[in-house]
Amino acid sequence: MPMAELTQNGVPFYHQLKEIFSEKIENGEWRPGETIPPENQLCEMFNVSRGPVRQALDILVRDGLLSRKQGKGTIVLPPKIERGLGTFYSFTTLIEQKGMNASTQMLSFETVTAQGSVARYLEIPPEEPLFKVRRLRLANGEPLILEVIYIPASICDSLTAEKMLTTPLYTILSTCYGIVLTRAKQFFEPVVTDEYESQKLGISNGAPALLIQNITYRSDNRPVVLSKAIMRGDRVRYYVELSAQINVP
Amino acid sequence: MPMAELTQNGVPFYHQLKEIFSEKIENGEWRPGETIPPENQLCEMFNVSRGPVRQALDILVRDGLLSRKQGKGTIVLPPKIERGLGTFYSFTTLIEQKGMNASTQMLSFETVTAQGSVARYLEIPPEEPLFKVRRLRLANGEPLILEVIYIPASICDSLTAEKMLTTPLYTILSTCYGIVLTRAKQFFEPVVTDEYESQKLGISNGAPALLIQNITYRSDNRPVVLSKAIMRGDRVRYYVELSAQINVP
Repeated sequence: MPMAELTQNGVPFYHQLKEIFSEKIENGEWRPGETIPPENQLCEMFNVSRGPVRQALDILVRDGLLSRKQGKGTIVLPPKIERGLGTFYSFTTLIEQKGMNASTQMLSFETVTAQGSVARYLEIPPEEPLFKVRRLRLANGEPLILEVIYIPASICDSLTAEKMLTTPLYTILSTCYGIVLTRAKQFFEPVVTDEYESQKLGISNGAPALLIQNITYRSDNRPVVLSKAIMRGDRVRYYVELSAQINVP
Repeated sequence: MPMAELTQNGVPFYHQLKEIFSEKIENGEWRPGETIPPENQLCEMFNVSRGPVRQALDILVRDGLLSRKQGKGTIVLPPKIERGLGTFYSFTTLIEQKGMNASTQMLSFETVTAQGSVARYLEIPPEEPLFKVRRLRLANGEPLILEVIYIPASICDSLTAEKMLTTPLYTILSTCYGIVLTRAKQFFEPVVTDEYESQKLGISNGAPALLIQNITYRSDNRPVVLSKAIMRGDRVRYYVELSAQINVP
């Protein structure tokens, strides 16, 4: 089997190995559910000592590409769910399209007052009452997204936790309140999870995640929903296709 | 001043405080360069003990929103650079548009053979020679992106490190080799930086970052450049606007 070689170019061996191993995983050369070659064999393959091999594997375990199983060695985790950017698929639609079962766990449903950037994004005065809903979205029973949603109470004053458990939010807004959602603005930032987020998502503290802030507007351009979602980085990756002519600078 | 209140809803106080503080920063209520109220004052404001306040501030320091300065207290760091998704702006264009000075530091320039997902993304047989270029992109002298670029040698066999230092890659490809780039596919994944990446980017180990894999295609649909960029999470955030009618599921 042809083998990438480590080079003496100022880049530490563990980082070069991390690149090579992740390319093997991404390529399916190391397949999901399978055990990768044991450390001593990897040392021989790349002609390096155990230190950098173990360090590279540690990083990939932390990043959620590999998992160490007692007595079974290091196995490859399932590939990430790919999610197209710039589409309006709901979580339920996305998960069901992938052949998985989507579910939601309500964590809290409160009435609060608008503060800070929440008031600004929703373009309402501070102190205006809001519903603040925390929920966990799961695929096949596995938590994927920890979400906080803010909705001005003035927009749908009879919203309840019960309604939100049985009906998708956008359906409630359109059928109960006649609100047509026409555009959204999303912000993407990488974050590392804190203890609370990690515990809810069932991942280790300090794991990579994506913070997605989504502001949804109705047809008269008034923002009606702000959501802040912490999406597990080990299970989902986003993609976008750009087809315009590339701007040569 | 109106104040968000902490609630007994199963969400730990430090996590609620982290949310409130980050909303104040995002909103400009706590301004870049300014010192935030001292811990004891924050404890009084929210009627909590020092533990959760300090824990929330620690998380925001780790996430790159705040910085602790000896003898100056905790200051707010500059807001993140916003970058639109789905645009083909080059790094240089983006940074100069923001009124900053863009520069590039070449870390290595090697000829390697295609392996794993690199061969697959570039749609070339394994073992085909590639240029592999590592470089650091800086804004006002501050490292923002650590990049690895792969280009099949067959496409531009006389490419050199010197050329790449003086001329943007897309310009080299179009002017020297007549290659017109027409589309790209990008994958976005949150990661945490390893020691090497952290050191190059001047951030702490385990900091949040975005891994952006970009495959650029020329007019005959052949992929010509694969780049893998580690973008600092504390300095850049992405946004996208969706204007299609929202799909009610």
